[in-house]
Amino acid sequence: MSNIYLFSPSGAIRDKKGFKRGVSLLKSMGHNVEVDPTALSAFERFAGDDQTRLGAIERASSSGADVAMVTRGGYGLTRLLPQIKYASIKKAIKSGTDFIGFSDFTAFQAAVLAKTGCKTWSGPTLMDDLAVEKPDELTLNCLNDFLLGRGEGTGWYLKRKPLNSFLDQSPAKYSKSGYLAKDSLLWGGNLTVLCSLIGTPFFPQIQGGVLFLEDVAEHPYRIERMLDQLMNAGVLGAQKAIVLGQFNRYQLNSHDKGFNLAGVIQRLRARLKIPVLTDLPFGHVEVKVCLPMGQKIDLYRDDADVLILWSDDHHHDHDH
Amino acid sequence: MSNIYLFSPSGAIRDKKGFKRGVSLLKSMGHNVEVDPTALSAFERFAGDDQTRLGAIERASSSGADVAMVTRGGYGLTRLLPQIKYASIKKAIKSGTDFIGFSDFTAFQAAVLAKTGCKTWSGPTLMDDLAVEKPDELTLNCLNDFLLGRGEGTGWYLKRKPLNSFLDQSPAKYSKSGYLAKDSLLWGGNLTVLCSLIGTPFFPQIQGGVLFLEDVAEHPYRIERMLDQLMNAGVLGAQKAIVLGQFNRYQLNSHDKGFNLAGVIQRLRARLKIPVLTDLPFGHVEVKVCLPMGQKIDLYRDDADVLILWSDDHHHDHDH
Repeated sequence: MSNIYLFSPSGAIRDKKGFKRGVSLLKSMGHNVEVDPTALSAFERFAGDDQTRLGAIERASSSGADVAMVTRGGYGLTRLLPQIKYASIKKAIKSGTDFIGFSDFTAFQAAVLAKTGCKTWSGPTLMDDLAVEKPDELTLNCLNDFLLGRGEGTGWYLKRKPLNSFLDQSPAKYSKSGYLAKDSLLWGGNLTVLCSLIGTPFFPQIQGGVLFLEDVAEHPYRIERMLDQLMNAGVLGAQKAIVLGQFNRYQLNSHDKGFNLAGVIQRLRARLKIPVLTDLPFGHVEVKVCLPMGQKIDLYRDDADVLILWSDDHHHDHDH
Repeated sequence: MSNIYLFSPSGAIRDKKGFKRGVSLLKSMGHNVEVDPTALSAFERFAGDDQTRLGAIERASSSGADVAMVTRGGYGLTRLLPQIKYASIKKAIKSGTDFIGFSDFTAFQAAVLAKTGCKTWSGPTLMDDLAVEKPDELTLNCLNDFLLGRGEGTGWYLKRKPLNSFLDQSPAKYSKSGYLAKDSLLWGGNLTVLCSLIGTPFFPQIQGGVLFLEDVAEHPYRIERMLDQLMNAGVLGAQKAIVLGQFNRYQLNSHDKGFNLAGVIQRLRARLKIPVLTDLPFGHVEVKVCLPMGQKIDLYRDDADVLILWSDDHHHDHDH
């Protein structure tokens, strides 16, 4: 079992019933759960004002828990980045506390990586994945592996359609099997949040990494504009591979006339010399794997099968 | 009268009637209008594919017109930035062609400023401001002054509410009258488009300037996140003043619970040592002034009156 500290650095929790359900689920999985005193606070759209949420981050850092899990994303972390005490975060991580979350939490993860080089985890939040009526089984299994310090990698299957036309184009690049990256730093998260850090001290400077991206409710033209920003800023070309997760809940309209996400990805591939893989089960979707951001990984592909493998330096003291 | 070259570097024009109405209006104002051969082209959501639109920009540059005006914004220019021939644009501007537009056109303007140091104009487009059923009279007057090379500045009135609480806070900073900036480079445009260039070679590196910003259909939390990016990237603090135009067509929701644009601006002011003025008549609104981006200006304030003044180095050869 794992000792979990739940805290709210971003948006306010409105669904208190769901919150309780999520906590119960974690407990029923055999874990200890400690809830930060301001986890259910609310100020405007935030889980408490900035000082309150900074306090929550500090308490999570000094909790000594195996895992510090955020209750949800939303918006709020970019406001806090200049005031976060990164030395405390680093100390907590080095002492064995793994931080986990996604979406707005990308801002925290990117800043921690940029400021300390330390690893955090991209994965479920309480409200998105555990508080729901029917939590996804695969997501729970991956999360439980993470909570028990058992994870050694993750794998998925490249769909042929609609996004992944890797067999139709650039065959030399996309039909390639074998290791696409070895000993490469895995990093990424929410595309919009990541792009909102470009040019600031909170954007990690990573060369030769594997960059994973997801987003929600962003029109493909905005996704393309953000990918172009990462491209023109020299970020994409400096990586070994790009791995696209899920991009969903956007609306195409009558003005698009054929412009769509598949075209955005096709154009990206035409402009990049490195592989752009798709279908990573990560994003604002039910099926969500856990990914170690800031860890060296191997990226392996065998036809339509893809594996991200990390060596087992991930030990919770999970038996106390 | 002015010789105007109309071209479409961004979104496709769907309203052909409106287009004709706009051209007629420019002609009825006494100007010559030349329409680029691909001004009405369409490919997906764009006014022609990338090569078509790059060709339109080149023809506008070599047109010898007094004014090269874009037909509309939308999305499309950020895709073209790496391939634009900046030397041709510079030559055109030095030879007396003034480029004008706004919104997506901000990408072009920023890149031209970054790459050449040359001035372009932020102001009306054909479809937004001239093709409409009832063009705004003030907008037409400002545009006509620009077209005739008559403009020497622009002025507006600071409203007390809801955005502008300059009398209530930081009185030393905000009750100050007189010159807030002298001989400062005026630059800016659409906040989202500008932020999409941070970290790329197309973002101008301006110290001691006056930065103006507007946006449309962006929730205040996104506006705040972008302002924070400009802040954390060191851009805002390096300016003499920030001038906010219009931010509109967004929807607050029940989760905001008091979080709003006024609060965003209040927080910005609290974090910045320089004046943050509001109410500039510029943005996705009917009343729109013309602003020389990349020109040295003076920013003058007398209580609620604000003036942006530029010396008259703006000569069209407007009598041929």
